[in-house]
Amino acid sequence: MLGILGGMGPLATADFFAKLLEETPATCDEDHIPVLLLSDPRIPRRPPAILDGGESPLPRLRELRDALIGAGATVLAMPCNTAHHWYAPLTADCPVPFLSIVEASCAALPAMAPAGAPVALLATRATLAAQVYDAALAAGGYRPLLPTEAEQGDAVLPAIARVKAGDAAGAAQLLTPVIEALLGRGAGAVLLACTELPIALDAVQSPLRARCVDTSRALAQHCVRFWQTRSR
Amino acid sequence: MLGILGGMGPLATADFFAKLLEETPATCDEDHIPVLLLSDPRIPRRPPAILDGGESPLPRLRELRDALIGAGATVLAMPCNTAHHWYAPLTADCPVPFLSIVEASCAALPAMAPAGAPVALLATRATLAAQVYDAALAAGGYRPLLPTEAEQGDAVLPAIARVKAGDAAGAAQLLTPVIEALLGRGAGAVLLACTELPIALDAVQSPLRARCVDTSRALAQHCVRFWQTRSR
Repeated sequence: MLGILGGMGPLATADFFAKLLEETPATCDEDHIPVLLLSDPRIPRRPPAILDGGESPLPRLRELRDALIGAGATVLAMPCNTAHHWYAPLTADCPVPFLSIVEASCAALPAMAPAGAPVALLATRATLAAQVYDAALAAGGYRPLLPTEAEQGDAVLPAIARVKAGDAAGAAQLLTPVIEALLGRGAGAVLLACTELPIALDAVQSPLRARCVDTSRALAQHCVRFWQTRSR
Repeated sequence: MLGILGGMGPLATADFFAKLLEETPATCDEDHIPVLLLSDPRIPRRPPAILDGGESPLPRLRELRDALIGAGATVLAMPCNTAHHWYAPLTADCPVPFLSIVEASCAALPAMAPAGAPVALLATRATLAAQVYDAALAAGGYRPLLPTEAEQGDAVLPAIARVKAGDAAGAAQLLTPVIEALLGRGAGAVLLACTELPIALDAVQSPLRARCVDTSRALAQHCVRFWQTRSR
């Protein structure tokens, strides 16, 4: 059973679950992966913990991880990029495989951008500050290309907040010019490294999605492949 | 924590979770209901159990119910109409509230159709044979109006199968003339009493939805109201 450690945020968790089903080759119910999904919006907020010394979510993430395993999860996924700041401690003592959204997303890059290309990184300030993607990008030969301070503060962060508030189309309006500008500044691809961001582009069926890595969908594909090859 | 007993089918379960979030008044993550969702497509199939004496899903449904409670669920919902054939035994010895999709859906009728009106019932053959809705409709003063054998066999059942196979728009093409015909035969409202059916009409943003009760959304609204008033 695939355990989904979610709730960061709830809409992104639901979007990930829907994409997991979309990515599963299935013609009837029985073809689908058994899933146990926890959506706990009470997990201490990740950005203040990283940026301002706020309460760490790690103890609660460990508790939920262990609850999922205790209830029968044999492989885990966590559809939140910022929470992957705690991926190392969460996996160090984890008795079942815990699939990484960072690894899954970076694996999608070679098909979109040549090694050496800049890859734009749209994420929370906390994901950027914690350098969640930096090592994986460097390992693939990619250079992170960040939005300007104005793009980050006036578009990326408000877009994330709008998705969480249920206004995905409004979020897309904010994001579109930023993605176009980053592509104009030479980005070979754009990592939507916050699971709220793909929801925005999906809401308007943006053609820019062809230039972006949807980190939720990448993780979903990774889970399906894992399930098909290694876990039953 | 709201426990969702799902997987019958997985897409309907994901649709229910998405509608639960849509129906929750929320501007940030923390406003959402904590959810534990089990999507188990290995639950023995409901229609053969009802129609052909196949393996009963009840023992497995009890196990999953108890697993959800054991993992912290304080209220339960099951977004599958056919499975509500086993609602009485599932709730008889259940230590937490278990919200009924039948009760939630019939509560939506008075706003759409006057007492005494025929209410069309689109559902699996098993839901119809097990008379899952009959007592609740009668209690509200409504008369069930069933599709013809041809409409059931050539449109309703294939539409359910198409949604499960990922072709929601194709399912809507099959359903639309049946819903129009039932309204033409005097239905005051149409109960989409299979949680795959609303997915079809949503996929094409059908204006017929205004004349239909989406049983997934009705259950989601019932859960939100319950959570707001009785459980924290």
